[in-house]
Amino acid sequence: MKYLIMWLLLLPLLATAQQSAPDYVCPPCGSCDSITYHQPGICPHCGMQLISKTNAQQTPPPTICFLLYDGVEVLDFAGPMEVFSYAGFKVFTVAKTKAPVTSQRILKINPDYSIQDAPPADYFAVFGGDDEVAGKDPEIIKWIKQRDASTKGYFSVCTGAFILANAGLLDHLTVTTFHKSIKHLQNMLPNATVLDNVRYVDNGRIITTAGISAGIDGALHLVARMYGQEAALKIAKQMEYDKYVPEQGLVIKH
Amino acid sequence: MKYLIMWLLLLPLLATAQQSAPDYVCPPCGSCDSITYHQPGICPHCGMQLISKTNAQQTPPPTICFLLYDGVEVLDFAGPMEVFSYAGFKVFTVAKTKAPVTSQRILKINPDYSIQDAPPADYFAVFGGDDEVAGKDPEIIKWIKQRDASTKGYFSVCTGAFILANAGLLDHLTVTTFHKSIKHLQNMLPNATVLDNVRYVDNGRIITTAGISAGIDGALHLVARMYGQEAALKIAKQMEYDKYVPEQGLVIKH
Repeated sequence: MKYLIMWLLLLPLLATAQQSAPDYVCPPCGSCDSITYHQPGICPHCGMQLISKTNAQQTPPPTICFLLYDGVEVLDFAGPMEVFSYAGFKVFTVAKTKAPVTSQRILKINPDYSIQDAPPADYFAVFGGDDEVAGKDPEIIKWIKQRDASTKGYFSVCTGAFILANAGLLDHLTVTTFHKSIKHLQNMLPNATVLDNVRYVDNGRIITTAGISAGIDGALHLVARMYGQEAALKIAKQMEYDKYVPEQGLVIKH
Repeated sequence: MKYLIMWLLLLPLLATAQQSAPDYVCPPCGSCDSITYHQPGICPHCGMQLISKTNAQQTPPPTICFLLYDGVEVLDFAGPMEVFSYAGFKVFTVAKTKAPVTSQRILKINPDYSIQDAPPADYFAVFGGDDEVAGKDPEIIKWIKQRDASTKGYFSVCTGAFILANAGLLDHLTVTTFHKSIKHLQNMLPNATVLDNVRYVDNGRIITTAGISAGIDGALHLVARMYGQEAALKIAKQMEYDKYVPEQGLVIKH
């Protein structure tokens, strides 16, 4: 009887505790950002550490703008899109206009924004392919320069580096690009050092990666820099990209 | 004078020879299929062996149908799309309807066809993600079965294997899927052997791959089977995916 009374007295307290227990969410990713968990731990979907819902709401996710154009190489942007989505970035796509763009002469994509209405983003990402299209378009280059003050960091894959070069962003840096375009970029940037045989080069504000599939490694590196190597390795595991070797990249400056 | 007369006599013959010299093209790929070369050799863009234009016209490229749906994982299909495009496949996309589908909750794609008007293809490819959408849709499963007689081979990445399983295609086979879904697929297919720790399994008509990035390895394997390991390795080099290790896959039957 004594225990029953104690239990009855405790009930309101227990109910209050239950009401105020924090909820947990996975750092938003493509698969599990809408699920709420009632205990801390590991997301059963992607293996990321759950964080309290309140913290998640207070800290907006990093944003990254993907510049797409007709002829953009499909794996160049899809690899990093996969990584950044699992890392909780808010990824959006932009093209010169809102008309669909075709990637790899196959995939027809509706960009989220045109350069007329794209919002600012923490990171700005460019990719290779028929990059003369974007890299030599004065309107696109002008637009990239206009966004520079609000851009925290740049990320290029493959010959996407030529777009950054045309925007005057790579002078005096150590960078990389597609293996067949190393000499071309070096000729274009006599004041820069263009490296071969490196998966990515991190200059702090600007990360350039080698060709096509190397974008995956560069994106995992940026995640590792922001959230720790463990977070990057978890995403690599989720993607079954255990072929990621952090040491294949070069860090000049964080 | 004698030589001048001989030269004048030979001129028409030389002109004829020049006219009939064969032209060469790269096995059509996303970057270089529209360029004609006047000598055999290696394509300077993608490193593939040039073939005579006449042969290229006489042998139509293999076709592959990519089934996309809302929630399809972006790297699941983009990796193989990259590989197959370099290997000269004609790749097209199909969704249940022609309405845009969203991949990874980010990328808005206009499919080339709906299941109402999609042409037949030599190969049929399915991918993971929110695969319950496609795998449990009776109309899609019925459509896959209807195409079966005209389909030479199947290719699944990640949990795309569940779509093939629902179409009754994996019974009694050795297969693989996303690492977190091995048990689930094994329970669904008591007569099949579902393997972990293998990048791809080739049963001849049906190739299944492990999760997400493993689709790249499976696609390279199919290219190697069709055109030789050298062709696959050249594409891997082009993509800077020298992380491709053929032995990480399992061939049950070619």
